[in-house]
Amino acid sequence: MKTSLSRDGYSQAGPIAPTVMVSCVDSAGKANIITLGMYMPISHDPPQVVIGVSPKRYSYDLIMKQGEFVVNSPGIGIAEKMHICGIKSGKDTDKWTEAGLTPVPAQKVRPPLIEECYGHIECEVVNMVTCGDHTLFVGEVVAASINAECLKDGKLNLEKAKPIAQKNWDYYTLTK
Amino acid sequence: MKTSLSRDGYSQAGPIAPTVMVSCVDSAGKANIITLGMYMPISHDPPQVVIGVSPKRYSYDLIMKQGEFVVNSPGIGIAEKMHICGIKSGKDTDKWTEAGLTPVPAQKVRPPLIEECYGHIECEVVNMVTCGDHTLFVGEVVAASINAECLKDGKLNLEKAKPIAQKNWDYYTLTK
Repeated sequence: MKTSLSRDGYSQAGPIAPTVMVSCVDSAGKANIITLGMYMPISHDPPQVVIGVSPKRYSYDLIMKQGEFVVNSPGIGIAEKMHICGIKSGKDTDKWTEAGLTPVPAQKVRPPLIEECYGHIECEVVNMVTCGDHTLFVGEVVAASINAECLKDGKLNLEKAKPIAQKNWDYYTLTK
Repeated sequence: MKTSLSRDGYSQAGPIAPTVMVSCVDSAGKANIITLGMYMPISHDPPQVVIGVSPKRYSYDLIMKQGEFVVNSPGIGIAEKMHICGIKSGKDTDKWTEAGLTPVPAQKVRPPLIEECYGHIECEVVNMVTCGDHTLFVGEVVAASINAECLKDGKLNLEKAKPIAQKNWDYYTLTK
């Protein structure tokens, strides 16, 4: 039997979401982190990804004005650190210190990589689209890197990386 | 140690993706299904989701011209049926017959729900954005429904639904 869902409850009928930790910088180069459940790759050639950010979030202005961000992929082992970066605001918190995360220089953009994440996708903003109460940022991928131990025959080794899937902000990893 | 990835390989540094089965119709009302790894919710109010579709796919024209689609969420138990709907083309295949799937009428749109999926999000296209070699369709949610047994305290019951996560088109479900 199918049960109708309310307008607010529609996402219960959907699949799980990935979670990523996006790093960005302000005009002085000070870096922030925002945890997002809205990420997807969109184009192979040129390589492009999209993220969704609410204009209410501190990171929104940083990404919009500086035009750069890094998508960092966390494993389930740092779920607690990731959660802190989702609930605190960069306006009054240094999330790097608060969550115990380490910034390392990126190859092509100013926002740093998060050392503790297994993968890093460096992006330049090429488009912005308002969708209701969020904004889609389209990022062109200018560099990408991964922890060497998480790569196997050119592909992500899920057993090493243990990527996170999320539903209702409860965190899981994958099994066959 | 971080290893650089090639332009083509960037997605290995990313997280997992959800998989959904999108139903759509042609001008005569004949329904097709396309399996997509590009889906995300984007707005709470109004409720909106985005999907990414290549203009090369048969379903692209159907969604663009008819302006409606349904996001159906499969459990791991129908992974094989889902896979068939990803590799065959609706141009020369009736995927409902080929995969053994059952169309049931939606509440608000012409594309049918896929009975065998646990959840259904009915959408009207409100925007289209070209992003490299794919197109983002922004859909406003006009109705949603879920298998009654997959709802627990108003939330998706993951143990019943067993939603699918995907990496490199290999399929997984979730574990703590």
